[in-house]
Amino acid sequence: MKIAIDAMGGDNAPRAIVEGTVLAAKEFTDTEFQLYGKESAIRKYLTQDERIEVIHTDEKIDSEDDPVRSVRRKKEASMVLAARAVKEGKADALFSAGNTGALLASGLLIVGRIKGIDRPGLLVTLPTLSGSVSSFNLMDVGANADCKPAMIDQFATLGSYYAQSVQGIRKPRVGLLNNGTEDNKGNELAKQSYQLLKENKDIDFIGNVEARDLLEGTADVVVTDGFTGNAVLKTIEGTALNMVKLVKKTIMENGLKSKVGGLLLKDSLSNLKGTLDYSKHGGSVLLGLKAPVIKTHGSTEKESVYYTIRQIHEMLSSNVVTNVVEHFEKGKEPAE
Amino acid sequence: MKIAIDAMGGDNAPRAIVEGTVLAAKEFTDTEFQLYGKESAIRKYLTQDERIEVIHTDEKIDSEDDPVRSVRRKKEASMVLAARAVKEGKADALFSAGNTGALLASGLLIVGRIKGIDRPGLLVTLPTLSGSVSSFNLMDVGANADCKPAMIDQFATLGSYYAQSVQGIRKPRVGLLNNGTEDNKGNELAKQSYQLLKENKDIDFIGNVEARDLLEGTADVVVTDGFTGNAVLKTIEGTALNMVKLVKKTIMENGLKSKVGGLLLKDSLSNLKGTLDYSKHGGSVLLGLKAPVIKTHGSTEKESVYYTIRQIHEMLSSNVVTNVVEHFEKGKEPAE
Repeated sequence: MKIAIDAMGGDNAPRAIVEGTVLAAKEFTDTEFQLYGKESAIRKYLTQDERIEVIHTDEKIDSEDDPVRSVRRKKEASMVLAARAVKEGKADALFSAGNTGALLASGLLIVGRIKGIDRPGLLVTLPTLSGSVSSFNLMDVGANADCKPAMIDQFATLGSYYAQSVQGIRKPRVGLLNNGTEDNKGNELAKQSYQLLKENKDIDFIGNVEARDLLEGTADVVVTDGFTGNAVLKTIEGTALNMVKLVKKTIMENGLKSKVGGLLLKDSLSNLKGTLDYSKHGGSVLLGLKAPVIKTHGSTEKESVYYTIRQIHEMLSSNVVTNVVEHFEKGKEPAE
Repeated sequence: MKIAIDAMGGDNAPRAIVEGTVLAAKEFTDTEFQLYGKESAIRKYLTQDERIEVIHTDEKIDSEDDPVRSVRRKKEASMVLAARAVKEGKADALFSAGNTGALLASGLLIVGRIKGIDRPGLLVTLPTLSGSVSSFNLMDVGANADCKPAMIDQFATLGSYYAQSVQGIRKPRVGLLNNGTEDNKGNELAKQSYQLLKENKDIDFIGNVEARDLLEGTADVVVTDGFTGNAVLKTIEGTALNMVKLVKKTIMENGLKSKVGGLLLKDSLSNLKGTLDYSKHGGSVLLGLKAPVIKTHGSTEKESVYYTIRQIHEMLSSNVVTNVVEHFEKGKEPAE
């Protein structure tokens, strides 16, 4: 399998991207890596490794660039070249830490939608903080600010395939994010989506789930529109981050006894930070395209690049996208 | 001033409601209290206090009752009688810990909308966890799952009046919850609301705010539709609650050193819990009605009943609703 990597995307590019790729290349010896970007800058961080190919280009998409326009005009940008490699079958998956909007546009305009899918959606895997499962998937977290019920229904099928194939959950529990668990709850979109999900035979629909229960693993796949999903994702991040800050501040401001307590708790608190480390769960996946397209945080460091490549490796090994394509384009049952 | 209280609403009614009212009655000697509900059950928790009137009724609305139907049919329910007292000018504000939907219906159908307001919205005040302000207001958190841009614009004006009058913020910063801070971000609703808010001369609109920054006090009043607002509110609650659980679990599972650390931190952690105690900020306020209508959690205890009555007292003292009525119905500037 071959992964096309935009080496120039993200705040720490190309260093973090190249270092993370080198880490991954050591482990995944069955995989070929293609780094797209400024060759001289990339080579600086590259040790000799035969399976890392560098494809030089001077052009790149910047974080402030207009997504669709930049993808259309910057035809030699590292992200665009990497996307084209996937389109042309020279690579099996696309990875970037760059401009999210531009990556969505590259996925949609270059890699291409699966027939039968209206719009791809963005899925993230988040750690739970309690409950019997260690993570759950939320989709869409921002690819489509406005959604139609049919899109939410497709997200459910896509997300369910993902949880099955990549995470090995035999019968993923799919929930609809809603402002109450009763059947008739929600805005018009949620109410109509509920009716479609109830009839969707490809998923195990468990009904409405509330935002309050997400981190307790109330469902394996939670679907919603991209506006609400994005708000929920950012609220989880903001609340968790501020809670950690608050715990530290509380420890420091409550005198010596509290400070000593804090010191004794240092290991425990760093375990806590580990639990909350989203990067270990990889990047966000744009599902509904003909090949895996994965985005990681702009501020990514080599570790999260490594974890994201591991995730891509799992996606390719499990043939999740091939199965989804067969399901939607040919109406076949997934190969189990 | 007179407050009409539904003594039968909530899991711990009438005990918690009556005890909280007694606490408040001791402090707010300028206020008259009316308790609606089963007299014999109420009197059990009542000490002799001349300013607490009991209006007996056997009927009450249950938590599983259909909101609109129960308000229409249970004409002698404690909540309905309390709402009618406000409508008829026998009381100045309505307070209940009962069925939220029924309270919204009572507000809308009995107390009545302010002319010029399409739909009332639900506002909550939440503590910030960092930043220079100690709290912020979020509206709508669930009264209207589907909103139109004009409603979001009205929420902004209502919320701004509330922050000014009740919280004494001279020039409240109003932000629109969105999935990015740039002007052109969001779903159709957010984009259209942005245009109205930009032109709204009664507020200090600071633009789009992201969910990630809410707990840092990025705005004093954050407006959004009731579906998104409800999801964000419940995500904050769920994340904060699970973080506290996780901190405790982490301390207990990491050996003796960690446990001793936890013991030394006991006071600090209980301070932390105090910071996160939403009940001190009162209940959620249904704004846009001709009188203050306030809801507190069903699981409320006497302390939060007391805090909510304090909040109502502040609303009545500051004439916030009277000012809003003048603004919308007569186009007057607020009395400052």
